Amino acid sequence: MSQPIVVPVALGARSYEIAIGPGLLAEAGQRISALAPKARLAIVTDANVAALHLATLTASLDAAGLEHQTITVAPGEASKSFATFAEVCEGLIATRVERGDLVVAFGGGVIGDLAGFAAAAVRRGMRFVQIPTSLLAQVDSSVGGKTGINSRHGKNLVGAFHQPSLVLADTQVLDTLSRREFRAGYAEVAKYGLINDAPFFHWLENNWQDVMAGGPARVEAIATSCRSKAGIVARDETETGERALLNLGHTFGHALEAVTGYNSARLVHGEGVSIGMVLAHEFSARLGLCSQETPSRVAAHLATAGLPTRIDQVPGGAGTAGELMNAILQDKKVKRGKLTFILTHGIGESFIANDVDPSAVTGFLEEKLAGAGKLGA
Amino acid sequence: MSQPIVVPVALGARSYEIAIGPGLLAEAGQRISALAPKARLAIVTDANVAALHLATLTASLDAAGLEHQTITVAPGEASKSFATFAEVCEGLIATRVERGDLVVAFGGGVIGDLAGFAAAAVRRGMRFVQIPTSLLAQVDSSVGGKTGINSRHGKNLVGAFHQPSLVLADTQVLDTLSRREFRAGYAEVAKYGLINDAPFFHWLENNWQDVMAGGPARVEAIATSCRSKAGIVARDETETGERALLNLGHTFGHALEAVTGYNSARLVHGEGVSIGMVLAHEFSARLGLCSQETPSRVAAHLATAGLPTRIDQVPGGAGTAGELMNAILQDKKVKRGKLTFILTHGIGESFIANDVDPSAVTGFLEEKLAGAGKLGA
Ligand SMILES: NC(=O)c1ccc[n+]([C@@H]2O[C@H](COP(=O)([O-])OP(=O)(O)OC[C@H]3O[C@@H](n4cnc5c(N)ncnc54)[C@H](O)[C@@H]3O)[C@@H](O)[C@H]2O)c1
Ligand SMILES: NC(=O)c1ccc[n+]([C@@H]2O[C@H](COP(=O)([O-])OP(=O)(O)OC[C@H]3O[C@@H](n4cnc5c(N)ncnc54)[C@H](O)[C@@H]3O)[C@@H](O)[C@H]2O)c1
Repeated sequence: MSQPIVVPVALGARSYEIAIGPGLLAEAGQRISALAPKARLAIVTDANVAALHLATLTASLDAAGLEHQTITVAPGEASKSFATFAEVCEGLIATRVERGDLVVAFGGGVIGDLAGFAAAAVRRGMRFVQIPTSLLAQVDSSVGGKTGINSRHGKNLVGAFHQPSLVLADTQVLDTLSRREFRAGYAEVAKYGLINDAPFFHWLENNWQDVMAGGPARVEAIATSCRSKAGIVARDETETGERALLNLGHTFGHALEAVTGYNSARLVHGEGVSIGMVLAHEFSARLGLCSQETPSRVAAHLATAGLPTRIDQVPGGAGTAGELMNAILQDKKVKRGKLTFILTHGIGESFIANDVDPSAVTGFLEEKLAGAGKLGA
Repeated sequence: MSQPIVVPVALGARSYEIAIGPGLLAEAGQRISALAPKARLAIVTDANVAALHLATLTASLDAAGLEHQTITVAPGEASKSFATFAEVCEGLIATRVERGDLVVAFGGGVIGDLAGFAAAAVRRGMRFVQIPTSLLAQVDSSVGGKTGINSRHGKNLVGAFHQPSLVLADTQVLDTLSRREFRAGYAEVAKYGLINDAPFFHWLENNWQDVMAGGPARVEAIATSCRSKAGIVARDETETGERALLNLGHTFGHALEAVTGYNSARLVHGEGVSIGMVLAHEFSARLGLCSQETPSRVAAHLATAGLPTRIDQVPGGAGTAGELMNAILQDKKVKRGKLTFILTHGIGESFIANDVDPSAVTGFLEEKLAGAGKLGA
């Protein structure tokens, strides 16, 4: 077998490892049977990933003598719905997997969240393995055990904390990802630098092209991201404190996703996060928390990497300040009328602000939208 | 406030108390605000319970100054569906309850299971209070943290372990329960005697009429049941061992519910459990595990209490042995092709049998059904 980078996630009895490297998909059978020699597998995937990579996975499982069945759902955020959740749960039960067997979430963040929640719920908790196939899923959604689906009222409002038993991140699988999706995942990579690791952000400013090209820099960036997330999750599994830092850019980002109707033709999650992170830095600068240069530097790097950084780049517009605020107030980071935002004192110096005044946010958004209107006009 | 019997459920950081006694509903406001002074409440109930008892509950909450909103679903097992789960989750989110707020499950076992699972899932886990209003819910479903809904393939196959923060069992509320539903709950009371407490079963043989009539014997029977369940749950929260004893009579019972289409006009859960317990004792006797007198004595007491004890008492019939076996094989107590049944060496001497031969069960059921056919002819 290959020698991947292994990042441990230290969660006591629920600890597990993330293996990161090229070619892991072809080793999935060996690696899963080392974990659960006789388990039967129910693979949950989407049609895109199935068409490109399912044969490699199942060949590896067959070689290891592991029984498997596959449930395929439609690609895209719309599958994180109650209806598809029901479908996946019923599908898992129909495969007759039992409590010792394994659910395999094989796809991007949508599949990880959906299949992970189904694994948490079916028989009140089945073991599962994450095989993330998008950059976003490899550096973010597959690590940490948050699973879930979307509500009519907002994203990820229904779900479970359910840790996987193993994460296999095959960095080569990312070669078939569209440039756009790769970049969207890159926003989350940059996030780890911005949260608490300025040297990593500087390294990315110099090496982002190698990360995109593949090879050791990509593996290194993914491993650094996973180590960062694993550390935060180990210190705060259920988000009672520090884990909220991972939401840097996400309150604005989720609001943008909501007003664009979760329509990936207009905006994908990572693009929302990219714009959201720039907004969080701009808002911090405006509150006098960091220098004016900070948001400019953040925006410059993300734009260089090909990501949108301004509200006016959202195709079809991003609604009104009122619509965005309404989405923000529905998001889960609201406590007794005060807003919780992740703000920053500078690059790599993010912190949790628990008492942000909603009217300050409204004012800020109105100004941004007015600016956007002018630029767009 | 009144002086209810308090049964502690010892689960470390997730410990909580069950208060049992007459008149607790009118004290719910005081008792909940002692737990969570500023919490906002989202009550989930069914139309029957709402019509009879919601006003008492809300008056008490108003008096304690607790904000509340109510989500009402249709009564009956059919509400333990994916569709109603989605409806309740969306309803809870629409009330804008936040993570520190409380979901109140106010009703029988259907509401407890449904609202409990929704509480587990919304925002990945909200606190919740159980106010069980059926005897079955007071002695069984509200204690122990199992929540869930039904799958097309079987009962309770989707859900979560989610412990309440408090259980309020108002024994007076049971006065409005139909005789039939009261008796169905009584089957679960008798179960605790049959599992591991022969003196309690003897006490019930002598005092069942007082339990039905209300007053101290009822409170005592409910408290004994809760203590028994709480002890088992504290020793084995996630059912890796001993907790399976609580399934005495349930494998057969669930199969009977499945073949009668969960149609409560034909069979309610406790009736299935009653017949199922008798079958489990008869099957044990047939395997030579207990005396022939044991099942007769169990059947005699349950019949005296007004419960069905024979397959031929299922209105419309209970299908074929094949149909029952198919339902049993879909149930969750299956491990690598061998069946797990709760069998017994005598009254109060139940044990977990992990290696029951499916063909022995089929043979037993065929014989029972043939007998039933003869009786029915
Ligand atoms: N659970 C968490 O902690 C967490 C964290 C961040 C984001 N998320 C969630 O993740 C989701 C976004 O994840 P995503 O960006 O991976 O979305 P996604 O799963 O929709 O994947 C994006 C697209 O890429 C395709 N794809 C995936 N892998 C591919 C591959 N190797 N080759 C070709 N195409 C491939 C998919 O079919 C899809 O069309 C959102 O729903 C977000 O809420 C969850
Ligand atoms: N979670 C667990 O550990 C567990 C254990 C045992 C059973 N259960 C589940 O519990 C359910 C059965 O519970 P149930 O028997 O309470 O069913 P239920 O909730 O359907 O209640 C039975 C009927 O009584 C009505 N009712 C409830 N309280 C009343 C009152 N005080 N006055 C008048 N009518 C009242 C209800 O509206 C309903 O019509 C099943 O779904 C079963 O799977 C769960």
